[in-house]
Amino acid sequence: MKITAVIMAGGRGERFWPKSRNSCPKQFLSLTSDGETMIRKTVNRLRPMVEAEDIFIVTNAAYKDLVKDQLPEVPEENILAEPCARNTAPCIAFAAAVIGRKYDDAIMLVLPSDHLIGYEDIYISTLKKAVAVAEEGKNLVTIGITPTYPETGYGYINFGKEAGSAYEVERFVEKPDLATAKKYLASGKYLWNSGMFVWKISSIMTDLKEFMPDIYEGALRIGESFGTDKFTETLVKEFTAFTSESIDFGIMEKASNIFTIPGSFGWDDVGSWLAVERINETDDDKNYVDGDVITVDSQRTTICGGKRLVAAIGTRDIIIVDTDDVLLVCSKNNTQDVKKVIAQLKERGRNELV
Amino acid sequence: MKITAVIMAGGRGERFWPKSRNSCPKQFLSLTSDGETMIRKTVNRLRPMVEAEDIFIVTNAAYKDLVKDQLPEVPEENILAEPCARNTAPCIAFAAAVIGRKYDDAIMLVLPSDHLIGYEDIYISTLKKAVAVAEEGKNLVTIGITPTYPETGYGYINFGKEAGSAYEVERFVEKPDLATAKKYLASGKYLWNSGMFVWKISSIMTDLKEFMPDIYEGALRIGESFGTDKFTETLVKEFTAFTSESIDFGIMEKASNIFTIPGSFGWDDVGSWLAVERINETDDDKNYVDGDVITVDSQRTTICGGKRLVAAIGTRDIIIVDTDDVLLVCSKNNTQDVKKVIAQLKERGRNELV
Repeated sequence: MKITAVIMAGGRGERFWPKSRNSCPKQFLSLTSDGETMIRKTVNRLRPMVEAEDIFIVTNAAYKDLVKDQLPEVPEENILAEPCARNTAPCIAFAAAVIGRKYDDAIMLVLPSDHLIGYEDIYISTLKKAVAVAEEGKNLVTIGITPTYPETGYGYINFGKEAGSAYEVERFVEKPDLATAKKYLASGKYLWNSGMFVWKISSIMTDLKEFMPDIYEGALRIGESFGTDKFTETLVKEFTAFTSESIDFGIMEKASNIFTIPGSFGWDDVGSWLAVERINETDDDKNYVDGDVITVDSQRTTICGGKRLVAAIGTRDIIIVDTDDVLLVCSKNNTQDVKKVIAQLKERGRNELV
Repeated sequence: MKITAVIMAGGRGERFWPKSRNSCPKQFLSLTSDGETMIRKTVNRLRPMVEAEDIFIVTNAAYKDLVKDQLPEVPEENILAEPCARNTAPCIAFAAAVIGRKYDDAIMLVLPSDHLIGYEDIYISTLKKAVAVAEEGKNLVTIGITPTYPETGYGYINFGKEAGSAYEVERFVEKPDLATAKKYLASGKYLWNSGMFVWKISSIMTDLKEFMPDIYEGALRIGESFGTDKFTETLVKEFTAFTSESIDFGIMEKASNIFTIPGSFGWDDVGSWLAVERINETDDDKNYVDGDVITVDSQRTTICGGKRLVAAIGTRDIIIVDTDDVLLVCSKNNTQDVKKVIAQLKERGRNELV
């Protein structure tokens, strides 16, 4: 069966401010020393199993030009521009309806645009296993990540009986507290929910029809208008009317026939500035340095330089990000507080810096 | 007797890099929130006892325009431009010879250009006492600072017998180690050597003649040429031939009739970036912040902003200095290492940043 990929690229990525901005969020940035953007890497690693013409990018209308620039091989009509943000369920329904118009039925890989994969061969072979499972009946398959520590920032997938190369999913659970996360790990029955899904168009449409009928109907109308001069009008009308809902809550937690394939392919969600030292090489003092930088007696310091010289002296466990109009100096204990600065800037009406 | 002041303003002030540069050293910068430069403050606080036309600035030729701009009330002929750096003894001899041509004899206050004084009334009254002592015989008077802690970065003055409002100086001692500094404080017989001197022109010339005859003779020739068209030629010829020597070593450690007046007027030599939080108001978390700055959960952080927004999150005991072409992030434990960065830049030929 034809394999298509839907890459979700509508996120704002506030946690990488000030390098990420509303005008250019994380998926369109490079956070690795090779200079490749996150979305560029996402497409590259897929190419062994998906043709460029079968890759669809769902993004906000504001980012359409960024996608065109960064992914010139993706046909322009495959860039599905959401008129507003409505979380993952409407996003996936929109893409499924459009792909359903192009192909009678097809496999649909649903993938985030801003994660990193260390072992791409294992990644591809995991996806292929998922495709095989998805091709049977109306299975919905989610790729679970084998946890390496009790992370409290992710949702978990509780799996049960083995079924071929997959496991039946018992339930999805929200972000746990630390004690619960430790229990999950000890049980050996929980995987991280990575937000990667594999199914047939026909399977997800069936479940959308059952569990989210309004979105199903709206998505069908969008799909019908695709390629006609009514498309934009229909899209705006239908999409803005959708309820904002995640695919996890809207479908995965309710449907039957949910399977998970455990993946161990060096997945990293690159969730905050802390990730930069993890995904790049560091020096003997565990500093990561990019740009015109001099360090003296610095340790465990991450420096993303800009156009100027950055001199770091005696720094420890700190992140320095230099851009043309904003400088960030952030303790590694406080990377989540970047959002507080953004909130303050919005309050003060300084939207040009957000 | 006429009171004149010689302000020594030839220093490079590397410890305030990157705000201070070879092209604009510390004395020409403001490090306080009132925006007044160090040399501007130095002149202002002297005005209760010295006329503008009797204030002389000895500086490097490269800084003559900075002095003219910042001290427009000082007559241009009072800006004594050294063709090269030769430490304080030649600097003082040059000034003494020039002032000696203008006035038959006069009191000469010798003062650094880059220190701060908290209690200016006490400062003036201390200087007046020193003038009174200097007017007797051929006394050389140095202002000692009553130590508040065992600083190892300053020289000390060991004083003996009381003599009116002054004390006889037993000896000058170099920067001590911590144990020695503690002993000095415990003895109650040591003051910090602040580099402020008071004497008559005739007194210092007599001692220069005795202890530094080459510099004395050269300075006389410079003084004789002052105001003639031979001045520049004479100055360059004589001054470049001078041995580099401090007035402390060249005269004060050798001459007799040395007195000290203890001063307690909130003296601060503003010796490193650490001084900024000391000489300015800080917030409840002991942060000092200047410019367009947002802090979240930061403590004991000094931020001298530039043209961009600076966001500091969770920082502790750190100094952030933002300029157009250099950003410095420096632990408070490492402020002396700023010099190492400058040394590296010089090695790499990046003199535009020094």
